[in-house]
Amino acid sequence: MASEFDLIQRYFTRNTPQALLGVGDDAALIKPSAGMELAISTDILVAGTHFFADTDAYKLGWKTLAVNLSDMAAMGSKPRWATLGLALPEINEEWLAKFSEGFFACAETFGVDLIGGDTTRGPLTLSVQIMGEVPAGKAIRRDNAKIGDEIWVSGELGTAALALAVLQNKIALSESEMSIYRLALEQPEPKVHLGIALRDIANSMIDISDGLLADLGHILKRSKVAAHIHLEQLPTCNYVSHHLHEKPIHKLVLAGGDDYELCFTAPKSQHAKILEISQELTLPISCIGNIIAATDGDFSSTVYNQQHQIIDIKETGFDHFA
Amino acid sequence: MASEFDLIQRYFTRNTPQALLGVGDDAALIKPSAGMELAISTDILVAGTHFFADTDAYKLGWKTLAVNLSDMAAMGSKPRWATLGLALPEINEEWLAKFSEGFFACAETFGVDLIGGDTTRGPLTLSVQIMGEVPAGKAIRRDNAKIGDEIWVSGELGTAALALAVLQNKIALSESEMSIYRLALEQPEPKVHLGIALRDIANSMIDISDGLLADLGHILKRSKVAAHIHLEQLPTCNYVSHHLHEKPIHKLVLAGGDDYELCFTAPKSQHAKILEISQELTLPISCIGNIIAATDGDFSSTVYNQQHQIIDIKETGFDHFA
Repeated sequence: MASEFDLIQRYFTRNTPQALLGVGDDAALIKPSAGMELAISTDILVAGTHFFADTDAYKLGWKTLAVNLSDMAAMGSKPRWATLGLALPEINEEWLAKFSEGFFACAETFGVDLIGGDTTRGPLTLSVQIMGEVPAGKAIRRDNAKIGDEIWVSGELGTAALALAVLQNKIALSESEMSIYRLALEQPEPKVHLGIALRDIANSMIDISDGLLADLGHILKRSKVAAHIHLEQLPTCNYVSHHLHEKPIHKLVLAGGDDYELCFTAPKSQHAKILEISQELTLPISCIGNIIAATDGDFSSTVYNQQHQIIDIKETGFDHFA
Repeated sequence: MASEFDLIQRYFTRNTPQALLGVGDDAALIKPSAGMELAISTDILVAGTHFFADTDAYKLGWKTLAVNLSDMAAMGSKPRWATLGLALPEINEEWLAKFSEGFFACAETFGVDLIGGDTTRGPLTLSVQIMGEVPAGKAIRRDNAKIGDEIWVSGELGTAALALAVLQNKIALSESEMSIYRLALEQPEPKVHLGIALRDIANSMIDISDGLLADLGHILKRSKVAAHIHLEQLPTCNYVSHHLHEKPIHKLVLAGGDDYELCFTAPKSQHAKILEISQELTLPISCIGNIIAATDGDFSSTVYNQQHQIIDIKETGFDHFA
C-alpha cells in the first residue's frame, strides 16, 4: 500500500516556480514581492456539509481551490500560493488522481503554486489556505462602502442554488438545461481578473458564497450603511428570470449560496469604466442598487420590485450552524 | 443558537498587532518584513486519528497550534501568523471556550497572531496553517546534512509515545509518574527558540513528529547521506532509560511519534556552541551520532548499543496510511 509520503509525491508535487522551496520540507519558503501586502484566507470543506461525498473528484478538486481563489478575488489580490490539507477515509488512487487533476487545472488557470500540504486518514475533509499579493494599500475591503455608491454584481445570481435544488429534486429541469446550470455549482469560475481590475475603482467588495443578502450584509454592517436593491436588475439565468416573481425563486437569487461572484460598491463616477471592464473581460457586471444612509443603526438591504413594492425577505443566507 | 459569525467573533477574534487586517474580511492582510522569506506549513488533525475525541479541549487547542509551531522551529523560522479551519459536530460553547483558550495560550507564548479562519459543521477536524519569517537564505532545510556532521536532538525521545502506551493500557505506570509524562503528549512545547538559535549553526534540521528514525530518515534521503546512532546516547525519561534494552522500548524511542523535539546536524566545530545554547535555553540537547557517507544509495540509520552491536530496527515510524 502506498505510504503518505508516496501519495504526496505522486499526486501533489508539481513544479512551484513561484516558491523558493515547495512541498517536502518542514515548511515551504516563499519570497513576497517588494511593495506588496499578502492576502491570506482559508476554507474548510466537509463531505456532506459542503459537497456530496460522491461528487466527481475532478470537479471537487477544481472547486476546492476555486472557492478560495474567490476570496482572493474579493480583495483585489492576485492569488499565488496555496497549501492543501486532506483527510481521506481510505486510499483511492483513482479518486486522488482525478481530484489532484482538477485542483491543478484550477491552479494552473489562475497561476497558483501548491507549496505545501498534509494528508491523513479521516472523514473526507478538504482544507485550503490561499495566499495572494496586492500592492500596499490597494486591497478592497468590506468596510469602505460609501453612501451614494452603486452596488454591482458579476455573472449570475442563484444559478448554483438552482442546480442544487434540482439535484435535491426540489425543482425539475431537463437534462440539457441542467447541464449548463450545474457547471455553476460544480465548477465555479472565480472572478480573479475582475477583482484585480477593480483595484482603484471599487470602494468595497465581497464574494457571494453565502447568498447576496448575507454577503452584501457584511459590507453594510462593516461600512455602517444600508442598501436599496432592485429585484429586476439582479442578473439571473433564463430559468430564474422566467420565474423571478415566485417566492422560492426570490430565495434562490437573494439567499442562494455558492455563486462565487463578486459584489462590490463603487462611486457613480466609475459607472462607465466598470462597463468597459465588463466588455474587456467578457463578463456581465450588473448594477443592482445603491448604498444609502442607515436609519437607526439598521444596516440592511431593502429589495424593491418593478412596482416599487418592498419584497419581504426573511432569509438572510446560509449559516453552517444556524 | 449562535451563528457561525457570532462564534468566530466570540472565541477566535483577538487583537492581531502583527496584521494589517485580521479576522473578518474575505482575507487577512499582512506585510512581511523587508529582507525576510516566509516559511509556510499546514497540518490537519482528525479526531480518532491524531487525538482522542474526549481530549481536554484546552490541551487540544494548545497542541493544535504547537505541532505547527514545531514545523516553524524546524526551519529556524520565527512563527508570526496562523489561520485555523475548524469542523465541529455541534456547537458546544464550553468546548469552544476551552479550545480557544488553549490555542491562544500557545499563540501568545510564541508571539503568533490568529489572522483568519473558517468554522463549519462536520466530524471534529482541526486544520492550521502557520506562517513565519526567516532572514533570506537562512532557513535550515532537510537537504543539507554533511558527512562528518554530528547529529543532535533536543529534549527527550519517546516520552509522548510512552504516555500514549499508558493511555492505551499497554504499559502500566503510577498516576504520579504519568502526570509528568502525559504533558509531553498533551501539551508539547515547540522548540521555537532553539530553532532560531541554530540559524547559522545547523546544516540540516527537522522536527520529530513521526519518530526519530523516520524523521532523521527524511534528512538522510534528502541529503543523500547515512547515519550512525548510539542507542545509549538517546535522551530519554527515567522510565525509558531504565527499560532501554527491552525491544518494545526501542520502538518508543526510535519510532515513537509526537515528540516535537528538533533533530539537527551540525559540523563538529559547533559542538561547544551548541552546548552553550543548551545552557542558555535550559533545554537538554544531546549529541546522538554522526552523519556518514551512504553506501550503495542506502540512506538509512544504523543504531548501535554500548557493545557496538547493531540493533535490528524494523519500525520506520508512523505513517497515517501505511
